[in-house]
Amino acid sequence: MSKLWQKTTNVDKLVENFTVGRDRELDRQMAAFDVLGSLAHTKMLQSIGLMDAADLMLVQHELKTIYTEIENSNFEIEADVEDVHSQVEMLLTRRIGEAGKKIHSGRSRNDQVLVDLKLFFRHQLQQVVSETDTLFRQLVQLSEQHKDVLLPGYTHLQVAMPSSFGLWFGAYAEGLVDDLEMVLAAWKITNKNPLGSAAGYGSSFPLNRTMTTNLLGFESLNHNVVYAQMGRGKTERVIAQALSSIAATLAKMAMDQCLYLSQNFAFVSYPENLTTGSSIMPHKKNPDVWEIMRGKCNRLQALPNDVALMTTNLPSGYHRELQLLKELLFPAFTDLIDCLQMATFMLQNISVNKNILDDPKYTYLFSVEEVNKSVLNGTPFRDAYKQIGLDIEAGNFNPDKTVNHTHEGSIGNLQNQQITEAMDKVISSFDFKKVEDAISWLVK
Amino acid sequence: MSKLWQKTTNVDKLVENFTVGRDRELDRQMAAFDVLGSLAHTKMLQSIGLMDAADLMLVQHELKTIYTEIENSNFEIEADVEDVHSQVEMLLTRRIGEAGKKIHSGRSRNDQVLVDLKLFFRHQLQQVVSETDTLFRQLVQLSEQHKDVLLPGYTHLQVAMPSSFGLWFGAYAEGLVDDLEMVLAAWKITNKNPLGSAAGYGSSFPLNRTMTTNLLGFESLNHNVVYAQMGRGKTERVIAQALSSIAATLAKMAMDQCLYLSQNFAFVSYPENLTTGSSIMPHKKNPDVWEIMRGKCNRLQALPNDVALMTTNLPSGYHRELQLLKELLFPAFTDLIDCLQMATFMLQNISVNKNILDDPKYTYLFSVEEVNKSVLNGTPFRDAYKQIGLDIEAGNFNPDKTVNHTHEGSIGNLQNQQITEAMDKVISSFDFKKVEDAISWLVK
Amino acid sequence: MSKLWQKTTNVDKLVENFTVGRDRELDRQMAAFDVLGSLAHTKMLQSIGLMDAADLMLVQHELKTIYTEIENSNFEIEADVEDVHSQVEMLLTRRIGEAGKKIHSGRSRNDQVLVDLKLFFRHQLQQVVSETDTLFRQLVQLSEQHKDVLLPGYTHLQVAMPSSFGLWFGAYAEGLVDDLEMVLAAWKITNKNPLGSAAGYGSSFPLNRTMTTNLLGFESLNHNVVYAQMGRGKTERVIAQALSSIAATLAKMAMDQCLYLSQNFAFVSYPENLTTGSSIMPHKKNPDVWEIMRGKCNRLQALPNDVALMTTNLPSGYHRELQLLKELLFPAFTDLIDCLQMATFMLQNISVNKNILDDPKYTYLFSVEEVNKSVLNGTPFRDAYKQIGLDIEAGNFNPDKTVNHTHEGSIGNLQNQQITEAMDKVISSFDFKKVEDAISWLVK
Amino acid sequence: MSKLWQKTTNVDKLVENFTVGRDRELDRQMAAFDVLGSLAHTKMLQSIGLMDAADLMLVQHELKTIYTEIENSNFEIEADVEDVHSQVEMLLTRRIGEAGKKIHSGRSRNDQVLVDLKLFFRHQLQQVVSETDTLFRQLVQLSEQHKDVLLPGYTHLQVAMPSSFGLWFGAYAEGLVDDLEMVLAAWKITNKNPLGSAAGYGSSFPLNRTMTTNLLGFESLNHNVVYAQMGRGKTERVIAQALSSIAATLAKMAMDQCLYLSQNFAFVSYPENLTTGSSIMPHKKNPDVWEIMRGKCNRLQALPNDVALMTTNLPSGYHRELQLLKELLFPAFTDLIDCLQMATFMLQNISVNKNILDDPKYTYLFSVEEVNKSVLNGTPFRDAYKQIGLDIEAGNFNPDKTVNHTHEGSIGNLQNQQITEAMDKVISSFDFKKVEDAISWLVK
Repeated sequence: MSKLWQKTTNVDKLVENFTVGRDRELDRQMAAFDVLGSLAHTKMLQSIGLMDAADLMLVQHELKTIYTEIENSNFEIEADVEDVHSQVEMLLTRRIGEAGKKIHSGRSRNDQVLVDLKLFFRHQLQQVVSETDTLFRQLVQLSEQHKDVLLPGYTHLQVAMPSSFGLWFGAYAEGLVDDLEMVLAAWKITNKNPLGSAAGYGSSFPLNRTMTTNLLGFESLNHNVVYAQMGRGKTERVIAQALSSIAATLAKMAMDQCLYLSQNFAFVSYPENLTTGSSIMPHKKNPDVWEIMRGKCNRLQALPNDVALMTTNLPSGYHRELQLLKELLFPAFTDLIDCLQMATFMLQNISVNKNILDDPKYTYLFSVEEVNKSVLNGTPFRDAYKQIGLDIEAGNFNPDKTVNHTHEGSIGNLQNQQITEAMDKVISSFDFKKVEDAISWLVK
Repeated sequence: MSKLWQKTTNVDKLVENFTVGRDRELDRQMAAFDVLGSLAHTKMLQSIGLMDAADLMLVQHELKTIYTEIENSNFEIEADVEDVHSQVEMLLTRRIGEAGKKIHSGRSRNDQVLVDLKLFFRHQLQQVVSETDTLFRQLVQLSEQHKDVLLPGYTHLQVAMPSSFGLWFGAYAEGLVDDLEMVLAAWKITNKNPLGSAAGYGSSFPLNRTMTTNLLGFESLNHNVVYAQMGRGKTERVIAQALSSIAATLAKMAMDQCLYLSQNFAFVSYPENLTTGSSIMPHKKNPDVWEIMRGKCNRLQALPNDVALMTTNLPSGYHRELQLLKELLFPAFTDLIDCLQMATFMLQNISVNKNILDDPKYTYLFSVEEVNKSVLNGTPFRDAYKQIGLDIEAGNFNPDKTVNHTHEGSIGNLQNQQITEAMDKVISSFDFKKVEDAISWLVK
Repeated sequence: MSKLWQKTTNVDKLVENFTVGRDRELDRQMAAFDVLGSLAHTKMLQSIGLMDAADLMLVQHELKTIYTEIENSNFEIEADVEDVHSQVEMLLTRRIGEAGKKIHSGRSRNDQVLVDLKLFFRHQLQQVVSETDTLFRQLVQLSEQHKDVLLPGYTHLQVAMPSSFGLWFGAYAEGLVDDLEMVLAAWKITNKNPLGSAAGYGSSFPLNRTMTTNLLGFESLNHNVVYAQMGRGKTERVIAQALSSIAATLAKMAMDQCLYLSQNFAFVSYPENLTTGSSIMPHKKNPDVWEIMRGKCNRLQALPNDVALMTTNLPSGYHRELQLLKELLFPAFTDLIDCLQMATFMLQNISVNKNILDDPKYTYLFSVEEVNKSVLNGTPFRDAYKQIGLDIEAGNFNPDKTVNHTHEGSIGNLQNQQITEAMDKVISSFDFKKVEDAISWLVK
Repeated sequence: MSKLWQKTTNVDKLVENFTVGRDRELDRQMAAFDVLGSLAHTKMLQSIGLMDAADLMLVQHELKTIYTEIENSNFEIEADVEDVHSQVEMLLTRRIGEAGKKIHSGRSRNDQVLVDLKLFFRHQLQQVVSETDTLFRQLVQLSEQHKDVLLPGYTHLQVAMPSSFGLWFGAYAEGLVDDLEMVLAAWKITNKNPLGSAAGYGSSFPLNRTMTTNLLGFESLNHNVVYAQMGRGKTERVIAQALSSIAATLAKMAMDQCLYLSQNFAFVSYPENLTTGSSIMPHKKNPDVWEIMRGKCNRLQALPNDVALMTTNLPSGYHRELQLLKELLFPAFTDLIDCLQMATFMLQNISVNKNILDDPKYTYLFSVEEVNKSVLNGTPFRDAYKQIGLDIEAGNFNPDKTVNHTHEGSIGNLQNQQITEAMDKVISSFDFKKVEDAISWLVK
């Protein structure tokens, strides 16, 4: 390993490498959003007289060209360019000359990055919602399909009461509804415009922040410019918490899957090509996909804490390490979206064991059922309880193993309809249409 | 230290002590909510024929008496009683006989605890919202009061641009608005009825869960009974994340306060009895309150991770350690509410230094201002920039130190009105009235 | 809830309550160590001429009296006394007059607390080592006792290869050896004397820190006084990491226990009074002790992060919130020691199922064994592999289910002797004798 | 974004991509260590008759060739090869035929990865120790160089007592000594041989694990094969804790640097090319390197928790997600080593302000000094204290600002010699020589 401190040349390069880090690679993902920010910002500059109409026309036209190039993957951050913002400005200036240099008026690198990140996060959150919705529908479909297939219900990992695949799949579906409440909170916090806050203390130019707010489809703005800068780190933490909520649901489902695939449960199975096995251990169907999902999701559960540790006790104002949060958040979106897609895919291929409760070790599942049946038939609870206890002791316990639960959310009344309505309601609270319309108009 | 394994007697006591832990002490806080749950549950039992009208009347009357006793602090969990649920049932049975034993029909200890926790958390979240609102108003008031007092704005902890106390106080106010979005998400997830899920697999009794949902003022129910049980641990995590969001805002404010109280900044001060000092070091005003607040809030920032570590990789179904989450959550509410109150109290007593920018080390704050002024007066940016640079170099930089920022959220246009409206809107999304009405009716 | 900011009186009380917090309660546990620190400090003061011989004799005698009172639980921190240090000084002054006030010369509250904490932690670490050692012996004994009882070995939670109770118990024993390496590192970092660092910047008195180092049985001193103060927070983090290592081992064992007690495994069992059950579900033996242990240990696994979040980004020098770390560390010791004792106790009562592998679902465990046997008998690996594969496919796979593993650490050669020697070696690296001798001499 | 579940082909590819993840990229770093493991394993195989001498000679020769290719960066994991182990075996078989296939006898992928990881981690830990030592020497040198330059010492961020650059630099040096105690514990836990544990349940082959232990220079072996497998995850956690300890020290130093570079302190400075500034704000010297270091180190402080969350509550036995820990640990080593090098480099270029205490705001630093001087001259403490208090009040406090601290570890007696001896002692406890000798012999 070369020793840094023995070098005598290239000090600047050394410092740059250490401080720039993986910015070039990560910034590539923000490129389209950087252009969107500039499209809105320059329209606003012209409206307040800081850019003339001719320059604006040139700039808008070329920014849209660059936007298309990015969409078509014809865009790279060149090796000696520090970040995506510099790359876009350089391209612009190279192509349209002096006008390109004017887009930075009334803006600081700080609020430019802030708005890029917000636009990027907003886009990613929309993908997360979409993939979550797809998984939700898959789970509801399985819940309905297998609503009559019984499963042992466990408490303390002990066989306890009858459950069903209808309940099991449906529970994870309903869990995703609540998870999206957290995503909605993160969306609302993210979907406010920081542009115009400059380096965190505003500008002496008469910026029109309301105009850029509308142009970029934000719901509102981060009013106070000092608060806009505080959003760096906070937005990331809040999003990380939202992602961790979905991740926690997936991780728990993955743990159930790994258990249920074990020979000691054998409740579900998958086609051979979705598990890994061994020709010599024909019973072995390793649930690698679910294990990796559990691992990735548990790693995502640690994400909010990673952000907290990097930001706590920093006084107000910008600090350079806030840039490093990209290294945490950007791959997190990719990982979660991968996991959501993979979960949907796996569940499309799941088979459930229909005769689980034939195994005598599950007979006692029905003891409470039998007591309740007696009670409903008029026997006082204590007498019913005592009788079943005696039957069990005497080896005369032969429950009929049919389950007749009727109340809301029980085996016989899953309420998947109501759960789906709840999901639809949460998703409708995200105003994706407004965002999409704004963006379409900007790049038109 | 006595050696457990050398004891030959009292094994059951040993196991009980280890497993019951601090339940008695913590359950005391849930007592009123346990009674509320039973008031609703028994009304429902009577409606489906599992309790007769005479018993119901007895039970309701006595539960209300116990409720009043709890409110008046005339309630204790007796030494040989395991938890609050047993204590309430015991009191009831002691006072009204057989009828008291019937309240547990169609209910399991699991869903009883779940509903108690949800009612307790709901109550605590309302306190948190209320105290946050009070602190918010205090911050807005200070922002308006000191809107003309300038402060150096820092980036990289380097003196950068003019800021103001108006911006500084207002930024923390606006931060609390976003924090309440997280609290709102936690409230929505909490405010759903788990009662009727029994041990997590429902019941063969024809329970009416919609009825208890309405009686307890819940917005909706956790439909799927397996999901209702999954709410244990998840509700705690989501609430912890919401609390951590407010805590992060307070911790950052506390860090700013500690810095600004240092002799090296000297931006703010407090009356002597709110700091600690030394008669021999007359300059010393230790900001103990803010330091303790920073510490408590950073501890709260770790809370979501504590919950995650205790619950991750647990398969679905109840596990006994979920009970331990009370030890994490209950004191967290107390700590956060204390911090919110203490922050309000301290801010009521803050003095701000009005002449900070007279210190020559802050002169360069105005360099960007001066460039912008020239630009607005028609000088091309590069020329303006060059001229100010030359002035500085030549020691001729004498900025006028007035700041004329006009755009939304800047020093001259704080938008505290809009921020207050945003706060009012978030708070109005909590339907506290519905909850209070339901509870009032139940205990009437 | 009373509103702090509406109060007009008792401001000082308000601030004190908030900042002192639970100090009185927690300090009680440090009382004996505070006296030890003063015994050493005053001897040193006399040696450098800052206390005369007559005063020293009075002070030493009375401090020893107080030490005995603490040991006999005849010591309380009075209601209006802030902390343990004040209480001891007050008692001393009340009983011996002016001489009692002189013990604080050349010492600050900061280094007094530091040395108290180090002495307390050192004592607690010794208890942890002792309880870990006891659990270790229990595990080794069980490993030897059940070395011939086979168990399925799992990979991916899939039945994979033969294992044994000898291996299973022995693995956790060996795990504790490595955990004590972490405890040893924490011990070494803790076992250095901070006394004499005053408020973190040393003293103009000619203190003899080497003398107090020897008197208190420390291995060495925190030389640099600024570093001595940095030890606050760092010592706690390092200890938390050490405790978390043991906790992780216990948590994993607890998870195994909960699984193995499930009807789906049924590998182990316990007497009825060590589990909880139900007369109507006679199969149910809830492993509450192991679940609570898993929960407590996972909470302990979060502890180092709690400490990190409370201390990161604090500049050098004392900050008041460092005091709050006591609230994290003190109960952690109690919890871990409880868990270690309870694990030993439970294992003393475990029964293992001796016929697990009779169940046909475990037959394929032996497929690799059979291939290897053929190879050792001269069949080329591929031919052996192919033959066993064909046998399995044809339903002709009848392994003899004896296992003949001979290499180091395998079923037939557990190496518990070597593991025990490794444990003895680690424990001998803690110089408990030196510490005990020093303390005995001080209080004699 | 393409929808996974709409694809009908290439299912295997989908599963592989999800489960293999970044293995190829990360495994590249383990390549040399995989070869070392095979060099030792095959020698052992031959010794127990599972490989003949001719095959061994072929295999050893070719493995050494591959080792050299790896060292010379002439090694890639080909696109359709799953991991480094397969790549090495494929190369071997391609070049020497059948003999190459025999190296896997008596070994499972599980223990092969385990031993590769341990060898890799051991190597990285050695680099960490080396870079830490270099930084340590730099700090000690600065401490000696600037031992007479005074600095204000802060408590509660309030100006408190005189400190010095000698103390400040020296404190961080001494901190690194304790940090290496944690690294030593991690080293000892890592430096034990897991090879021969196969899939975690040992082998029916008569392996000689002691032989591979010696060949690979391990101090000992993980005896129990089930424990050897448990080392996965545990080794990573323990190493993460050790790295986090150094990271915490660096992060605190970075925070101090950022503060001390602020115009409000102005205690230290750096050449222009090591900070970033602005031509128009000539005062601005942004400490980007220290900010990025603080961020990277705080991220490293979160690492142990990331590992804990991914591994807690996993029952014993291998689980696929353990592979994902490489994604956490591998970059952590790189980041920490970068930070250590960069810290050394920056400190080589630091300038300290020699006239800090001339500023009148630091005058009261000396109040305690003056009291103590009076006491040492015979004035009773209370009289001295009162007199200085009166002087201060009357504006007559004119301390002489010389500091005469003489005790161990104080301004006038830094004990850098003793601290250096402590460092040397810790480093000598790592038996790097034994490891290097073993590796040299293996590849000779």
